[in-house]
Amino acid sequence: MLTEFDTTLPSIRQVQNLIKHTTPVELKLLTQDVLTGKVVWQDPQCICIADENSQQTTVWKQAIAYIKPKTS
Amino acid sequence: MLTEFDTTLPSIRQVQNLIKHTTPVELKLLTQDVLTGKVVWQDPQCICIADENSQQTTVWKQAIAYIKPKTS
Amino acid sequence: MLTEFDTTLPSIRQVQNLIKHTTPVELKLLTQDVLTGKVVWQDPQCICIADENSQQTTVWKQAIAYIKPKTS
Amino acid sequence: MLTEFDTTLPSIRQVQNLIKHTTPVELKLLTQDVLTGKVVWQDPQCICIADENSQQTTVWKQAIAYIKPKTS
Amino acid sequence: MLTEFDTTLPSIRQVQNLIKHTTPVELKLLTQDVLTGKVVWQDPQCICIADENSQQTTVWKQAIAYIKPKTS
Amino acid sequence: MLTEFDTTLPSIRQVQNLIKHTTPVELKLLTQDVLTGKVVWQDPQCICIADENSQQTTVWKQAIAYIKPKTS
Repeated sequence: MLTEFDTTLPSIRQVQNLIKHTTPVELKLLTQDVLTGKVVWQDPQCICIADENSQQTTVWKQAIAYIKPKTS
Repeated sequence: MLTEFDTTLPSIRQVQNLIKHTTPVELKLLTQDVLTGKVVWQDPQCICIADENSQQTTVWKQAIAYIKPKTS
Repeated sequence: MLTEFDTTLPSIRQVQNLIKHTTPVELKLLTQDVLTGKVVWQDPQCICIADENSQQTTVWKQAIAYIKPKTS
Repeated sequence: MLTEFDTTLPSIRQVQNLIKHTTPVELKLLTQDVLTGKVVWQDPQCICIADENSQQTTVWKQAIAYIKPKTS
Repeated sequence: MLTEFDTTLPSIRQVQNLIKHTTPVELKLLTQDVLTGKVVWQDPQCICIADENSQQTTVWKQAIAYIKPKTS
Repeated sequence: MLTEFDTTLPSIRQVQNLIKHTTPVELKLLTQDVLTGKVVWQDPQCICIADENSQQTTVWKQAIAYIKPKTS
């Protein structure tokens, strides 16, 4: 995977906004896992998400199917 | 994944047309999820789709198996 | 995925021939889906296939396991 | 996927030898399919295999888990 | 996969910290395997993890879904 | 996949050592297959493993989850 981290891209900006607004999200992985929490940071390779206990999980982007704001 | 976003490519143009005409689509993922809705935007990394409640889901392109217009 | 669309490559030429001769094909995906129909177009990212009702499905190449002429 | 077709690489040479000697092989895919037959050609993107009825299947290399000579 | 090993990236630095502090981790793979242990080294291609018996397993990064500190 | 075969990388060196010392290994694939045997060669694309009957299997690196020395 090459570094592709053009912060003008909608998908990069969207995750940056999720971080800024500490929006609760659902992250569905290719393993079928669904992680919920708030995005803490992203880099070209990973997205880090913290659950309600502030437990952090670092997800490889290659394993992500989709992300969406959590509906309450 | 490298930025490959040559808007003259049929596959890129097709998604741009789906956006323009707000065509209802079915998006099948490698997780077996089938998302339905309208494509809101695409960038080299992701496709964003909105369901009938305007809930948006951002799908990583790497996780897409196929897209097709939804048959009614 | 980089643009790799050297039309002298056997695999690219073969799909071009399937398009030209409107050969019925079977496309097996990593999701286990088997799509049948005729190839309408390909680009570096996708292959578009039309079924017997001319319904088109655009398949991401990353999701393809194999293609073969449909045996009757 | 970039064109990587250095014919001095052992893995490329091995498939070339399987073609030359028409060695029966087993090709295991990420879909769990096991294709058996003889390799007809390879290019940077695909390997084409013909079964005992000369039916050809073109397999995307991304979907290959392993290849081995078929044990009788 | 290209060498992407910019040690200023958060995801690379995080793994380096896990190595330095010998933090017990859980590594979830796309195969659904969950490996637990301590990270021994990483390079652009792999992460090596040692279990409680110092048995080392070298994991290809392409197969990683996520990593997280093990909760006791 | 680009040629990334820097023989100073730990993961490349480790496999070279497994070859040199003919260490019995377990190779877990994304298909869930577990191959056991000795590594015969590697190149940027594949790892070749020989079982106890010297039957060789050439595994595409993209399909590897992990490798570890076989515990007796």
